[in-house]
Amino acid sequence: MEHLECLFCQKAYPLNLFQPFCPVCQEPLLCHYPERKRNLHPEREASSEMFIEFLPLEKFDPELRLGEGQTPLVELHRIEKEFKLPPLFAKNESLNPTFSFKDRGTVMAVQKAVSLGIERMGTVSTGNMASSTAAYGAKAGLKTFVLVKEDISTEKLLAAAIHNPVLISVKGDYGELFYRSFALGRKFNIYFANSVDPLRIEGYKVIGYEIFLQLHHRAPDFVLVPVSSGGHLIGLMRSFLDLEKQGYISSMPTFIGIQAEGCSPIAEAFSSGKTHVLRIFKTKTIAHAISNPDPPGGNIVLKMIRESGGVILPVSDAEILNAQRILAEYEGLFCMPASATTLAGLLKLSAKMKLKPDAHIVLIITGGGMKAIKSLDSVKRNIHTCAITTLEEKIGKLLDT
Amino acid sequence: MEHLECLFCQKAYPLNLFQPFCPVCQEPLLCHYPERKRNLHPEREASSEMFIEFLPLEKFDPELRLGEGQTPLVELHRIEKEFKLPPLFAKNESLNPTFSFKDRGTVMAVQKAVSLGIERMGTVSTGNMASSTAAYGAKAGLKTFVLVKEDISTEKLLAAAIHNPVLISVKGDYGELFYRSFALGRKFNIYFANSVDPLRIEGYKVIGYEIFLQLHHRAPDFVLVPVSSGGHLIGLMRSFLDLEKQGYISSMPTFIGIQAEGCSPIAEAFSSGKTHVLRIFKTKTIAHAISNPDPPGGNIVLKMIRESGGVILPVSDAEILNAQRILAEYEGLFCMPASATTLAGLLKLSAKMKLKPDAHIVLIITGGGMKAIKSLDSVKRNIHTCAITTLEEKIGKLLDT
Repeated sequence: MEHLECLFCQKAYPLNLFQPFCPVCQEPLLCHYPERKRNLHPEREASSEMFIEFLPLEKFDPELRLGEGQTPLVELHRIEKEFKLPPLFAKNESLNPTFSFKDRGTVMAVQKAVSLGIERMGTVSTGNMASSTAAYGAKAGLKTFVLVKEDISTEKLLAAAIHNPVLISVKGDYGELFYRSFALGRKFNIYFANSVDPLRIEGYKVIGYEIFLQLHHRAPDFVLVPVSSGGHLIGLMRSFLDLEKQGYISSMPTFIGIQAEGCSPIAEAFSSGKTHVLRIFKTKTIAHAISNPDPPGGNIVLKMIRESGGVILPVSDAEILNAQRILAEYEGLFCMPASATTLAGLLKLSAKMKLKPDAHIVLIITGGGMKAIKSLDSVKRNIHTCAITTLEEKIGKLLDT
Repeated sequence: MEHLECLFCQKAYPLNLFQPFCPVCQEPLLCHYPERKRNLHPEREASSEMFIEFLPLEKFDPELRLGEGQTPLVELHRIEKEFKLPPLFAKNESLNPTFSFKDRGTVMAVQKAVSLGIERMGTVSTGNMASSTAAYGAKAGLKTFVLVKEDISTEKLLAAAIHNPVLISVKGDYGELFYRSFALGRKFNIYFANSVDPLRIEGYKVIGYEIFLQLHHRAPDFVLVPVSSGGHLIGLMRSFLDLEKQGYISSMPTFIGIQAEGCSPIAEAFSSGKTHVLRIFKTKTIAHAISNPDPPGGNIVLKMIRESGGVILPVSDAEILNAQRILAEYEGLFCMPASATTLAGLLKLSAKMKLKPDAHIVLIITGGGMKAIKSLDSVKRNIHTCAITTLEEKIGKLLDT
């Protein structure tokens, strides 16, 4: 993999990690691979080794891994029964080293950086990408610059700070910070692997390949994924396009990208038939991890989702909290509000359209609920109290509630 | 597996999950297996299926799994170099569904409960076991009673409450609550799977079998594990005893159980040559997850650790925080203070004794740092701030710090 390409003007450019946007279209560049037969190697031990022929690396350096990948795909039997749904699975990406799918992308960016002799990494993040980049940067011994919004929560700040990166809380517009970081990266020789970094996007493909193997070599019929910058969904779509091209599957899943109503610029462009996403200026949603008013991958998402017959769907905060509760109460799965958008979207869709009884549906659970515990403050909780001396009486009363 | 046995009076008792203590010695009972050849099945998909012949289940019900197990074993190359240590690995149990090793035990208890037609489960917990039991109870559709201490942190309370168990915050002595729960369980037909539950302990064995496979069919030379109630260490020792008995390994690892100085009743009994652990009355440590002043498995731990030539070692809060920092800064591994005791113990040991250069050492990382984020409040953090307009100047200054 020596080139990047632009999906819009279809030009190729030599690989330059410091310059990941098309100079003509200003769109994010994606990795470009020479045409050839590529094979999966499920017999290998590490996830990245299994899929190495589909990834932008010559080889995978095990010294840089934290144990990412090979996350469980769990069938949600109780939700299937309760809501009369076809086979439904959760791909639990919260079981990555820093508890979100971001590690899939970070490991790929760090592998490439180290192979190219790059010594300084960076990221601009609202949370999950900050701790992920700080952790992988630490493991690789890179000098790591983490730029965060000044209103980041203490939990998310501490989860990055513990790895001792150069951590800067920046006052100002987040979208501006995102784009400015690349200029600063070129000036100071810092590889900023932000949300739509081409290497990151290739890392997300591994999630798709794993799902294919875990479903015993079949593609799901539907894949539901939260959409923020767009990078994650782009990576997932690319993985199944790869599998189709290489003859592993005969048809693509239907991709359903979900946004929170309070910040849904891509869903708005999708439903109004636009080819370009318009930045929005006021956001309000409980799903902070996907609250991106100016998604840099938005136009690519619109193009790819339309070409593949997918949908971008908004869901409300009430639907999100309800879905988060259902996943926790029926399936023992405690995820971030951003991840619960997937079930919220599915429940909305299944009320409108008939799903075939043998359709296979996969929800991508992007991160663990512990990372956004404050979002539960507004949820009604049943917590009883008593003294040890009255515990017997208390349990007796609660036995059949 | 139809019987439980007492390690002290060596009597066997019919399996009764509601009565897990020896009526003669008052010690926790352990699972007893008929003598026969048992085999590992590493070719199978789920971790529990690979080791089913060593576990107290006829079969493993996949509908009750949350995706536990098959956690990564990651080599800590940078710490090896920095501290001149032989091959050092972290078994990262924080990548279980509720982010701690407790899931290994809970899944086993729930499998057995469902196979026996039990409909009510319970646990008495200070934190991690509460969310784990609530999650697996939800997945299995059991009525689940979770009894917690009144001073439990909000994060830990919410992580259990989200699964909607019958959650009772109990005022009173925790040790008394632990033992009283069994009487209430018998009265109300609730299977209380507490810390030294015999099924839980069998679940912890799976961690040991996985380490054996991940090291390519060899036992490590040293296994370091935090010790609270004792159940986890007992399970780990049993796994390697099983492997030795069945001819998979020729010698046992040296087990090193670590306690926090501010709550180290087992370490105190060990160093003073006692066969019984004395309850302590005042505890003070940052490692809340292992702060158990009256460990129910303490006497078994003392017996097994002496028979196998192991050690129980105390470490200070300062050593714990330093180890937590080293794991995060060198290896990108952010763990709970309780888990960092393992590296703290190793650094203490390696200063006193010469480790062979080809020794293999495994640290058991029991839970993720996000679950105890408050413990970081006292840690010095380097967080810079600036406006977007002065970011260039700021990065310039920080470039070579």
